[in-house]
Amino acid sequence: MKNKRGFASDNYAGVHPEVLARMAEVNPGHEVAYGEDSETERFNEVVKELFGKDAVGFPVFNGTGANVVALQAATKRWEAVICVESAHIHVDEGGAPEKMAGLKLWTVPTEDGKLSVEAAQSQIFDVGFVHRAQATVISITQTTEMGTVYQPEEIAALADLAHANGMLLHLDGARLSNAAAALGKSFKEFTTDVGVDLVSLGGTKIGAMAAEAVIVTNASTPRGKELAEAMPFLRKTSMQLASKMRFFSAQLNALFENDAALALANAKKANAMAQKLYSEVMEIAQSHPGISIPNTAEANAVFPIFPAEITEALQAEYRFYIWNQATGQVRLMCAWDTEEEDVAGLVGLLRELVGKN
Amino acid sequence: MKNKRGFASDNYAGVHPEVLARMAEVNPGHEVAYGEDSETERFNEVVKELFGKDAVGFPVFNGTGANVVALQAATKRWEAVICVESAHIHVDEGGAPEKMAGLKLWTVPTEDGKLSVEAAQSQIFDVGFVHRAQATVISITQTTEMGTVYQPEEIAALADLAHANGMLLHLDGARLSNAAAALGKSFKEFTTDVGVDLVSLGGTKIGAMAAEAVIVTNASTPRGKELAEAMPFLRKTSMQLASKMRFFSAQLNALFENDAALALANAKKANAMAQKLYSEVMEIAQSHPGISIPNTAEANAVFPIFPAEITEALQAEYRFYIWNQATGQVRLMCAWDTEEEDVAGLVGLLRELVGKN
Amino acid sequence: MKNKRGFASDNYAGVHPEVLARMAEVNPGHEVAYGEDSETERFNEVVKELFGKDAVGFPVFNGTGANVVALQAATKRWEAVICVESAHIHVDEGGAPEKMAGLKLWTVPTEDGKLSVEAAQSQIFDVGFVHRAQATVISITQTTEMGTVYQPEEIAALADLAHANGMLLHLDGARLSNAAAALGKSFKEFTTDVGVDLVSLGGTKIGAMAAEAVIVTNASTPRGKELAEAMPFLRKTSMQLASKMRFFSAQLNALFENDAALALANAKKANAMAQKLYSEVMEIAQSHPGISIPNTAEANAVFPIFPAEITEALQAEYRFYIWNQATGQVRLMCAWDTEEEDVAGLVGLLRELVGKN
Amino acid sequence: MKNKRGFASDNYAGVHPEVLARMAEVNPGHEVAYGEDSETERFNEVVKELFGKDAVGFPVFNGTGANVVALQAATKRWEAVICVESAHIHVDEGGAPEKMAGLKLWTVPTEDGKLSVEAAQSQIFDVGFVHRAQATVISITQTTEMGTVYQPEEIAALADLAHANGMLLHLDGARLSNAAAALGKSFKEFTTDVGVDLVSLGGTKIGAMAAEAVIVTNASTPRGKELAEAMPFLRKTSMQLASKMRFFSAQLNALFENDAALALANAKKANAMAQKLYSEVMEIAQSHPGISIPNTAEANAVFPIFPAEITEALQAEYRFYIWNQATGQVRLMCAWDTEEEDVAGLVGLLRELVGKN
Repeated sequence: MKNKRGFASDNYAGVHPEVLARMAEVNPGHEVAYGEDSETERFNEVVKELFGKDAVGFPVFNGTGANVVALQAATKRWEAVICVESAHIHVDEGGAPEKMAGLKLWTVPTEDGKLSVEAAQSQIFDVGFVHRAQATVISITQTTEMGTVYQPEEIAALADLAHANGMLLHLDGARLSNAAAALGKSFKEFTTDVGVDLVSLGGTKIGAMAAEAVIVTNASTPRGKELAEAMPFLRKTSMQLASKMRFFSAQLNALFENDAALALANAKKANAMAQKLYSEVMEIAQSHPGISIPNTAEANAVFPIFPAEITEALQAEYRFYIWNQATGQVRLMCAWDTEEEDVAGLVGLLRELVGKN
Repeated sequence: MKNKRGFASDNYAGVHPEVLARMAEVNPGHEVAYGEDSETERFNEVVKELFGKDAVGFPVFNGTGANVVALQAATKRWEAVICVESAHIHVDEGGAPEKMAGLKLWTVPTEDGKLSVEAAQSQIFDVGFVHRAQATVISITQTTEMGTVYQPEEIAALADLAHANGMLLHLDGARLSNAAAALGKSFKEFTTDVGVDLVSLGGTKIGAMAAEAVIVTNASTPRGKELAEAMPFLRKTSMQLASKMRFFSAQLNALFENDAALALANAKKANAMAQKLYSEVMEIAQSHPGISIPNTAEANAVFPIFPAEITEALQAEYRFYIWNQATGQVRLMCAWDTEEEDVAGLVGLLRELVGKN
Repeated sequence: MKNKRGFASDNYAGVHPEVLARMAEVNPGHEVAYGEDSETERFNEVVKELFGKDAVGFPVFNGTGANVVALQAATKRWEAVICVESAHIHVDEGGAPEKMAGLKLWTVPTEDGKLSVEAAQSQIFDVGFVHRAQATVISITQTTEMGTVYQPEEIAALADLAHANGMLLHLDGARLSNAAAALGKSFKEFTTDVGVDLVSLGGTKIGAMAAEAVIVTNASTPRGKELAEAMPFLRKTSMQLASKMRFFSAQLNALFENDAALALANAKKANAMAQKLYSEVMEIAQSHPGISIPNTAEANAVFPIFPAEITEALQAEYRFYIWNQATGQVRLMCAWDTEEEDVAGLVGLLRELVGKN
Repeated sequence: MKNKRGFASDNYAGVHPEVLARMAEVNPGHEVAYGEDSETERFNEVVKELFGKDAVGFPVFNGTGANVVALQAATKRWEAVICVESAHIHVDEGGAPEKMAGLKLWTVPTEDGKLSVEAAQSQIFDVGFVHRAQATVISITQTTEMGTVYQPEEIAALADLAHANGMLLHLDGARLSNAAAALGKSFKEFTTDVGVDLVSLGGTKIGAMAAEAVIVTNASTPRGKELAEAMPFLRKTSMQLASKMRFFSAQLNALFENDAALALANAKKANAMAQKLYSEVMEIAQSHPGISIPNTAEANAVFPIFPAEITEALQAEYRFYIWNQATGQVRLMCAWDTEEEDVAGLVGLLRELVGKN
């Protein structure tokens, strides 16, 4: 199955050709290392185009790095973070937030991957009480780990809650472009404009090789300035500072220049494939009670429930992950390079298997 | 001066074309993320070719990452590391070893960047005494931060000291290829064969975009096995795990396949340019008492002392760092892409300036 | 209300006179600091008397210190701990396990404060998968934070689960004496004998001034030896090493010598008062539907639900904590010095208030 | 030799009877735990009496705890501390500052244990440069680890340097009372009044059982307020929060009430014994070239150099530490309970041994 496109993860995909081309383009000659290069200067302009004139950005290597750097900037040594139980920072980062930043994560359950205001509120108590790790950041993921998408007003409500309690709102945007494509809105409209303080901007899953960035959405306020000033030091001590940074900025520029043209094109493609997959599987589900899809597919992931033998047979041809062993729910993730033929192939096999059963 | 080649650092240089080509080559199609790809499999073979059949390697993003991951594997939560005062882990990593790994560094002074057995020995005392952070790793840099190169027997002596005290020897090989080229020896001959337990293998400075690896030289021993088993977890929690790892392994493979052919060619070039620079400056120094070179240039760096006004005038044309403000010592670093014309240009300007004075 | 005995916490109580006397007794003259004194030597014998001949103990200052030291010894740098959501290490230590030891806590819900085998099992998955912080310790509290007591066979089942998965079982015994009194069993019978690897032995709540100890129950095994060897270093770096340790060992000796005679007497007293309180409140609850006690009171704490106005009126006279603002559940904790008159006082006031309503 | 008074350490001594008495005095009845008790309230007044009306204090268990809590408050996650090579925080805390607070210590050599302005200045460079851990605290010890005492103007000069660079000055006062006695000055005159921002106030070595405190000297400034607000959280997460705090405050109150009357009396006694020891050994040294005392004894420690065989013979009778194996320098520490007969005993034995030689 080597090199065959499957539905396991959007980071099984390669690098978009335009990204590779940009990396080759910035290669000739010497440039000052560690970010004082012209390509990184350009990235700083791109950040302002996307997140507003007071935004500043800091390229890092990967998503865990972006999240851990951002959360360190937002917390004092003893503070904590509120997030959902399925949050990437809680379940998929090997404990890096705890180990590297000493952070307690106060988690709340969620069905659809979204954090509600009520759920977040439930973890804000015993303020000033030393026995309780003090939550000072709310962290959400957009698109969520369950393939859903927060509406701007949902984010605004969480930002209001955070700010009313002297807290910050962090948004893990490993799939921010998929969210923008799904919402039909600019990044700014559902981050800076609705009160998000810190964004982990994802490049890798949407066509980069390895490039993410921490965005401080508003460095013009005292708190924003403090965040922005902390970032270079935290990036360095968190081992996320690239010496030849121009190549990381180049990846981000290729994706996010021109109002994120390439990233959004990639995202639309991936989302569209997921919509197609969703519709087709829903159709099959009509006549097969063992098959269902609990959540709508709002971006580039579909989470159907299949009978175990169906899953097994599908996995013989296509890579994808079983999300919940108990319920049989699986995750089908579409990437920027997922093609109609891939969806057709999987769906065809599913129909075939279902017919057999 | 944008894009003009200077002598500031070997990471001001770009990526070698063969490395870029290899990255493009591994791009098509999907591959399993996080290292279970064919290119990383190939890298594991390359590691064995270079460091011996029991060696295993773990690609990471950067040198600080490699060092901090390696040192964490080698130490218990409360243990310490012996190194020289000029060690990169001590002075150039923003405190990452302390902050991220909780490590105490016991430092000893050195003139030429090398750690002597006597100096290392001087920090091994109060063994078992809880008030003293227990040193259990000796960490050296090859080539050193002062441009010198350890002979294999010097490394062997430090390995013997380490092992006689139940400690490990770590070698920060950010410029391992320059050392190999200078010594005319294979990596294995001055690492695995002389008792080095852990190597931080540098790719970035010798032509990669961003790629280093932690090498466990002998995973066949119980201790080596333990190191090798710890590494994937430490790499993950240290935020050094690339999702699209094939592109990092590709960089390393391009450099280190065929007995490190490309890396060694690049290193020989850089070293030769430094030799040339050294000879020319030494010649000028004969007749100009304000100019001298305290240490020999054994690899790709030269550390001359210039009068302040000379340094200033040179820096107007060529980027390089002042190493010691007090003595006027500067660092001239040659990269894999430094050309004879660059050396000739700098030396010509120096002669011109000296003539004026 | 200064100095009036209430029901807020067993650490609102003072020091038992015999403990104070022992501290005065060991005062004269000089003794070697940091634990090489005769009183600490005696404590080591006491530990063997209580936990078995292969047990070793390490006095520390407080319960958080005991837990964090013990858990660090039991985990590698990247590992995690399974516990219940109400565990003291999760909710009452200000995030110290995360901040100081970098530990991820994998929590499971519980009604009665006890961790079931099924619940613990539910967190053991993705073993060897770097994205998931690897749980290698199960941590339980005896008596639990809800006033219940694990039966020895329940602990044995958790120990079996832990060991079958290569994990350790840690028991937070801040109220170990109350458990022993409730069970009518020696410490050893429900720790060492049933497979507990590490115990945080509580002294403070049962009559000491400030003295706890980490117990390695079996230092004769390779893993136990490793734990025991780590402990002095972890205690030191965790800032839990008393210079004049004789005074801390004296407290522990006063309580735990002679088969923990004083600690058990104190515990029986506290437990009996809680039983009395439980019976009286249950009697009142018969005829007052707004009053109930969801869990049985198995040791020295009772968790009744009171109407808000009752709670308020009671708190005007007696200190105690509201445990759950939503349900009106409160915590009434009896200490070693709680007297029948205190219980009678509270119950009398409750009857009076209830009559009014 | 059990219980015989020697010269090993001032923490080999017991607890002063007045301190024990005060602990017994505060014992009856219940008091709110964790510092909301009347004895701790009294301690807060004592702190203001000693360090000025804007000072606030936080009792902790031990000196390492005081230092690590104070330094965490004074630094951001990535910052560093300047101190001398012989500083307790560097060599005697098992690496706790690095492990628990992630701190890099930038050390400078010193002969007499004092940090000079020039030496401190030498470590303030590359400000704002991410590769260098940014020093934002200067930490000194009073009395120093070599038995010398800073004059107030020396401290003022270091405070000025710190503040001119936006840094804080921390003073490790494990032996602050010995310094006050030696200087004939109040604590305030050589801390608050000369610009010290944070003090680790030592109680244990001067007659407490285990009690130190972190003092913020001026909580009326924005920075001081910030320090004071951080302290309770850092004390908790650093496992330094005593539940029955009244007993720790009682120790401190016994020592430091009435202008530190008891602490100063104890210190004067210890210092006087050291002076006596110094004079006697100096007299012997006149006629015995193998014996010398490099530094003056300004407080309660004397650091003579003895021939190895003399040291060995003395140690057969009196406990003390060899400070420098290479030079034969030993440390003779006088405690609050050192008596003239102890000094006479040691000196008599020395004379006897010297006569023999």
